[in-house]
Parts: sequence; C-alpha cells; structure tokens
Amino acid sequence: MTYCLGILLRGGLVLASDSRSNAGVDQVTHVRKLAFLPTAAGCTAAILSSGNLATTQAVLSTLQERSGSGLPGLDVTAAKSLFEVAGIVGSILRTIVERDGRYVAPYGDAAAGFLVGGQMAGEAPRLFQVYAAGNFIEATDRTPFLQTGETKYGKPILVRALTIETSLEEAAKLALLSFDATLRSNVSVGMPIDLLTYVADSFSTESVRTIEVHDPYWMALREAYGAGLSELIDRLPTP
Amino acid sequence: MTYCLGILLRGGLVLASDSRSNAGVDQVTHVRKLAFLPTAAGCTAAILSSGNLATTQAVLSTLQERSGSGLPGLDVTAAKSLFEVAGIVGSILRTIVERDGRYVAPYGDAAAGFLVGGQMAGEAPRLFQVYAAGNFIEATDRTPFLQTGETKYGKPILVRALTIETSLEEAAKLALLSFDATLRSNVSVGMPIDLLTYVADSFSTESVRTIEVHDPYWMALREAYGAGLSELIDRLPTP
Repeated sequence: MTYCLGILLRGGLVLASDSRSNAGVDQVTHVRKLAFLPTAAGCTAAILSSGNLATTQAVLSTLQERSGSGLPGLDVTAAKSLFEVAGIVGSILRTIVERDGRYVAPYGDAAAGFLVGGQMAGEAPRLFQVYAAGNFIEATDRTPFLQTGETKYGKPILVRALTIETSLEEAAKLALLSFDATLRSNVSVGMPIDLLTYVADSFSTESVRTIEVHDPYWMALREAYGAGLSELIDRLPTP
Repeated sequence: MTYCLGILLRGGLVLASDSRSNAGVDQVTHVRKLAFLPTAAGCTAAILSSGNLATTQAVLSTLQERSGSGLPGLDVTAAKSLFEVAGIVGSILRTIVERDGRYVAPYGDAAAGFLVGGQMAGEAPRLFQVYAAGNFIEATDRTPFLQTGETKYGKPILVRALTIETSLEEAAKLALLSFDATLRSNVSVGMPIDLLTYVADSFSTESVRTIEVHDPYWMALREAYGAGLSELIDRLPTP
C-alpha cells in the first residue's frame, strides 16, 4: 500500500508520501515516492506515485527520457501550464499500462496513480490527481487536498482542520498528523515520510525533508498530539 | 453503506450503529440496525446488522421465528453461551445466503455481517463479529473493539484512546466521536445513531439511546471536540 497526500494552499503546496513498497508481506522494501519532474525554468513540478512500482518507475523514467525532446504531449519541459504537465503524466501512464497491463494481469494489477503539484510562472500553484485511467482532477478551494492509496484513516483530521487559507507550517503539521493516523492503522504504509513544503512563487525544489522514525520533531509531535487528545477527550462531556 | 461499532469493556459493552440504508443515491431510507435477540432469562444479546438489508432482515426474522422452537443450532433461547448465540447467527446467515445469493447476484450482493454482543449468566460480557461467510471472531483485551461497514474513518480515535479498561461513559463518548469522523467523510453513513451501553451483570436491555442530528449532547460533543482539536493543533510545534 501507499499513502500520498497533496495539499493546495494560498501560500503554496504541501506534498507528502510514505516509503513502503510491498509485494505480499514477505517482500517489503523502501522506495521514494516523491520526485521532481524535469521542467523548464519558471516551472517547478513535483510528483507523488502510488500503485504498481514497475508502472510508476516506467512513467517517471519515460518522463525523464522524453524531457527536452520537444515531442508534443510527451515533453514536460515544453508544457505551457501545469494542466498540460498533468496531461502528459496521464498520457504516458496510459501508454505504459496499455503496453504492460495484460502481461502483468496474471500476477497482479499494473495500475498506478499520481499526484502532480507545482507552479508555472504566471499561474498560482496547482495540484492534480492523475487516475489509473490517465484522466485527472484538480484540487480547488472547496477541497484543497487530494490523496492516493490508503486514504481513509488520515482523512478525518484534514476534513476537520484544513482549509486553503491554512499556513504552510500548519498544513505540514496536519499532513504529518494525517500520516500518523494512517501508520497506526495500516502496516503496509511505512516510514520514512518525504515531505515537501513549496512556497508560492519561490520556484524552489529545496524544501524537502525526510522524516525518519526517530526524527525528534516527529516524535515530539506524536507525543504532544496523543497526550493533548487524551486530555481533550477527558474534558469532553459524557453522554 | 453502514457503520456499526462494538466495544468490549471490563465494565460492559457499548454498541452503536448508524441508520442509513441505500440502494444507489436515489433510494435512501432509514433503518434500525441495532436489535435485541430473543434470549432466555439470564442472557442478554444485542445484534448490529450490516450488508444487504433483505438478508439481515431475513436473518433476524428467522432468529425470532425459531426462538423457543428447541431446534438445535437454530434456537437462541436454548444457547448455553454467547459463543453458541454467535454460531446460530452465522448458521442462519449461511442458510439465507445459500438460498438467496444466486438470485440476488445479477442485481447486487446478498452478503451481510453482524456484531453480536451480550452476556450469558456465568460468563463475562462477550462480543463477536460474524462474517459474511458465517464464521466469526471474538473481541479480546488486545483489540477490544470490532467494526463493520465503513470502518476506516472512525478507527484512528479508537486506536489512540480506547482500551478494555476504559469506562462505559468514556467508551460511549469515543464511539460517538468515531461516528462523527465517519459521518463527516461518508454520506452513505447517516443519522440517527442508536447507542447501547450495557452494564456488565445488569442483563438489562434498557440503556438504548437514539441520537438524532439535533440531540443537544451530540451537538455539544461535536462542537467541544472540534474547538478543542483546533486549539490542540494550534499548540503543537510546527516542523
């Protein structure tokens, strides 16, 4: 399984992913599911991958190999908008699944999905979810977050507390609390967490942090949240 | 969809269910998913139903009709333990699904599942989950709650805060918070909530409360939890 989360904010974007890849419980590895796309100057785009690892790696390698080629609909460096970038990701995903799907079917599912977030100069930051079918939706101010993989355990905290006006720091904190809820309930979602906080108009790829199990902030956050929640529940009226 | 939750405690049991039944989004009704089984004196057993409504109603009516018949494996009033009660529920479920399953298949799924909780004199309170296959598991002190239906949104709060030593009142509060998280994320889970708090050794069927949308306690709980959680998140350190 996988848990990937993208948050769209007035002030930028927060993208986060776990690192567990498994084919059955006896074949478990760590992978990086957060990557930057090879974009032109004036564009920053990150991608979060979920689903079949062979498929997601093939899509990312193809995106890399086609960059700079100038091939229409395949070269992300030639895209004029982030909408176009998401379309290229979906198009390459379709090609890979069409090629591999029937060979993979006897052993499992070749399907994959992506979150694509970033900014093109002249646009606000944008966030897209590319489905297994290659079509895609965009996050809006009404639903400023998108999830793939094991989405349910980590959703309530976001539904309660997140809006598009939330600050980048608060959203990063909420993202980690959402991962904490998921990690406690599904062992096929695993540490470390890769966390990108993108400041609008920075066009920077630098604010990526990998949070390991013993990361002091992660430990302090979990402890403070657990203790605070217990206190809060104790204070609430009983039926 | 449905959300049913059973909690096993040293001091008794908490059982809760939503009331939404739907066949597509344009055929939505309210049903009661919590019922008491027709047991003999010295036994109290409640049942929570999820899955195909025709199946769950057929199982409950059959349990009712067979009670007092003395038929081995069919008469819950003759059961010597709550384990045996759960076995009868599973057995009748198998009969109904064997009879109806292939006729229902072209239109949907005849499958159903149940939570059965209660107490037989001489035993501690016990809680079982009867699967669609008719087999069943029992809650233990290591995992003192069982869920059916839309289980994921409401699980994190239980994982964090619930143990078998939790008081009945606290567990009822946690059950309602678990329902709140689920109701906010899945519109196919709907109010009112039927909530049973069973005090160990009481053999009472009286502590059932139906919580409607405008129930003052429910509104106060949601508001206090929402406000308290916002304050808690604000207080937590940022990355």
